[in-house]
Amino acid sequence: MDASSAARAWRDHLQRLQSLRGAQALLAWDQQTGMPPAGAAARAGQQALLGELAHSWAIDPEARKLLDVLEASDEATHQRMALVARREVDRAVKVPSALVRRLSEAHSAAFGAWATAKQDDDFSAFAPHLRTVVDLALEELGHIDPDRHPYDVALEAYDPGTTIATLRPLFGRLKDGLVELLDAIADQEPIAHVPLPADVKAQRALNVEISEALGYDFGAGRLDVAPHPFTIDIARQDVRITTMFDPDDMLVALGGTIHEVGHALYEQGLPTGALEHTGLDRAASMGLHESQSRFWENAIGRSEAFCAWMAPKARAHLGPDAPDARTLFQQSNRVDRSLIRVFADEVTYNLHIIVRFELELALLEGTLAVEDLPEAWNSAYADVLQVDVPDDRRGCLQDVHWSHGSFGYFPSYTLGNLYAASFTKAIEAAHPTLWDDVADGRFAPVLHWLRHHVHQQGRTQDAPDLVRAVCGDRDPVADLLDHLWGRHGAMYGARR
Amino acid sequence: MDASSAARAWRDHLQRLQSLRGAQALLAWDQQTGMPPAGAAARAGQQALLGELAHSWAIDPEARKLLDVLEASDEATHQRMALVARREVDRAVKVPSALVRRLSEAHSAAFGAWATAKQDDDFSAFAPHLRTVVDLALEELGHIDPDRHPYDVALEAYDPGTTIATLRPLFGRLKDGLVELLDAIADQEPIAHVPLPADVKAQRALNVEISEALGYDFGAGRLDVAPHPFTIDIARQDVRITTMFDPDDMLVALGGTIHEVGHALYEQGLPTGALEHTGLDRAASMGLHESQSRFWENAIGRSEAFCAWMAPKARAHLGPDAPDARTLFQQSNRVDRSLIRVFADEVTYNLHIIVRFELELALLEGTLAVEDLPEAWNSAYADVLQVDVPDDRRGCLQDVHWSHGSFGYFPSYTLGNLYAASFTKAIEAAHPTLWDDVADGRFAPVLHWLRHHVHQQGRTQDAPDLVRAVCGDRDPVADLLDHLWGRHGAMYGARR
Repeated sequence: MDASSAARAWRDHLQRLQSLRGAQALLAWDQQTGMPPAGAAARAGQQALLGELAHSWAIDPEARKLLDVLEASDEATHQRMALVARREVDRAVKVPSALVRRLSEAHSAAFGAWATAKQDDDFSAFAPHLRTVVDLALEELGHIDPDRHPYDVALEAYDPGTTIATLRPLFGRLKDGLVELLDAIADQEPIAHVPLPADVKAQRALNVEISEALGYDFGAGRLDVAPHPFTIDIARQDVRITTMFDPDDMLVALGGTIHEVGHALYEQGLPTGALEHTGLDRAASMGLHESQSRFWENAIGRSEAFCAWMAPKARAHLGPDAPDARTLFQQSNRVDRSLIRVFADEVTYNLHIIVRFELELALLEGTLAVEDLPEAWNSAYADVLQVDVPDDRRGCLQDVHWSHGSFGYFPSYTLGNLYAASFTKAIEAAHPTLWDDVADGRFAPVLHWLRHHVHQQGRTQDAPDLVRAVCGDRDPVADLLDHLWGRHGAMYGARR
Repeated sequence: MDASSAARAWRDHLQRLQSLRGAQALLAWDQQTGMPPAGAAARAGQQALLGELAHSWAIDPEARKLLDVLEASDEATHQRMALVARREVDRAVKVPSALVRRLSEAHSAAFGAWATAKQDDDFSAFAPHLRTVVDLALEELGHIDPDRHPYDVALEAYDPGTTIATLRPLFGRLKDGLVELLDAIADQEPIAHVPLPADVKAQRALNVEISEALGYDFGAGRLDVAPHPFTIDIARQDVRITTMFDPDDMLVALGGTIHEVGHALYEQGLPTGALEHTGLDRAASMGLHESQSRFWENAIGRSEAFCAWMAPKARAHLGPDAPDARTLFQQSNRVDRSLIRVFADEVTYNLHIIVRFELELALLEGTLAVEDLPEAWNSAYADVLQVDVPDDRRGCLQDVHWSHGSFGYFPSYTLGNLYAASFTKAIEAAHPTLWDDVADGRFAPVLHWLRHHVHQQGRTQDAPDLVRAVCGDRDPVADLLDHLWGRHGAMYGARR
């Protein structure tokens, strides 16, 4: 078979798989937005069935033979198609199905145990499950590549091209810079928390208007409520976002919605045409995906310019008690050494991640025993964030990730922040009127830049290469610290 | 393989198929309730993929071998499982896949042509498509069974056990009786149409309260808005209903919701336990399904007792302008010789169906040419309903069914009304306090009776046998005419 026939056949294969995954996505979306409670058991069966089908199609030996042909092709696109496909298919093929089943059972049990342990603040009830999850993760990663560091193998599933060796220096310098900024802010007058309650229906209308203004296409998506907000693509032209409204704090939904809009704009902007169904028409990595959500949520959505544009809209929807631009800006950016990652401000957020990165690395390397995790966690928080962790519920039990065995996922969040900082600098350089445009609600130039430089690139390059190609030799740590000093440092009157 | 192993394997097979069909159902539900418009193309691909899978699983030769074992079993349940399965599987196997594709393409083209022809009131644009659809239907039915009348073969897909020979006398006597009643009503003072506008949100709350009162379990279902309301089972514990609110007429949603609740109560009440996944845990037929929707919509929902119970609820939700019990009863039951089936009252409705039955039978028998359909339609309406059909849009182009080639489906509606009339008489006999209970909002005894005598029977018998077993040798035509004279005749002061 010649290379272009193989490419056509491979694209047919991926299109078929994509249709099946769209059906899986709809099952998941529905489950988290509107499924009646009693439907849960049957839904699990439906998801298991479609999951098994997708797995068996993905590792289909006939389809995999096409990859040999593509790999040997002269065309760079064919080679890239094969490389990108092999990363996932080889992982799936190398892990014995008995281990897949054990992993699935262990994660399921660990998730249940984690939820209960968190509720009861009882780490000891979770510890044996976590130990099993760590052991099975090492077994799985060893099957995939026994010659590389297991954490590097884990990272590759989320952010190909990123390794411990690239993360360590980035995270090290970032930690030092953040601690310095945090100390400088702590020396200044604190900014008090001001509650911003608002009617949920009015909040919804405001969030819809903002999402549309940013460029989210409601003709190819929809906004629903979910307890743990997410973005999901049922199809390229059907990318749905979710949010959660808090009647006591309008900033919860606002930040959450803009975050998901960022993810959705990426999905709605991925390449079509020649790259469609090649496997290169997907997001480059989790870190790059997160860069899009965080760019819109933080760089744009928490900027003074955005708050100035939004304040009259908030007033129109929420009435005369709506916060003014200054309040919106301050409350969106006040810095607090807090315990919980998901509620953290932009300055401290990455410290939460860096702590987790070091701990999960130590867990996989065996230098930290599971039973010592709470002590290590609390000591890292005392050291890095300078907070006392009062209980494990608000400590090492707060996140779900480890119960799923998702080691290597946490760094994507900070990678996203780093990439977003460099993108912001690059956009500022390309569009000197950026902040005036934002203050006037003209988001199209920004979106156009991202569409061209990021979204339309799909998975044609790994994220680090893509960022380098777009931003040149920028230092993302310097970019992020510069952004934070310029926004949060300045707001508090802190000097470098 | 012994019979009980075969039964187990067959149930596993059906469970798997059921999970897949649940995913298909969710794709369909979402498409009709909330899918963003741009998602349509990908959705068609997802549905086609899952549809092909379901078809190939359904006709899987390995699974079909199990049916030979079940057929030869001593156990009546096994034999019934094989019989029920074969009816569908054999149909699917006998129709060549090339013809399946031609049918699908023809229906798709005919549906588009029908929608345009209806809009433009141009039957000639639809006629060639309908001719193809009729020809292909005959070809398909001939493959399934060349020795039986094609219309009997068509009927079997919807109502096994029902044939032209059973329908003709039923429909003949019913037509005569309805025409007599209609004439008697026409001699009386007409009841004027009173518009009953109501706020849509308030209507929604009222419809939810009524659905719950009737026994619909919102923990295992949900109510959404759809342009063409339907009930769909995603799973046994996830049966969803839809309705359509008309701000100018609260009776549109009310009748529609109660109708769908009737369908859903049947689905929510189908057998579990020993019969689950045997294929006998499904509705017995379309006609029996329709009997459940129409029993609740008409026998209960349009009764004086129900209107008396509902009037205060309507007032609570809709405010002081809400109609009183008498207005609700009269407006729900006023009789009108009208053109459109879906808006027809309970008396004239079945005449619309009988006209269609005779016409589609003539189309399949070749005694009516497609090009003569408008004239035949108009002449039947003038004769039976005594109305002049002003255009084909409100005549033979009004219904979608024939564009899908769904010949043999229309009778289910009237079968449903006939079965419902006999069920009503049987319930009245078993529960002498029926109408007092309804007036007090106690619907549980009625639902309990239906659960026991109808729902829990599933497909263990064909519908005519089930009705006979439950109602004895009642004459359903007499029961339906008696009901209509007692309600509509009496309301108009007409005497038999």
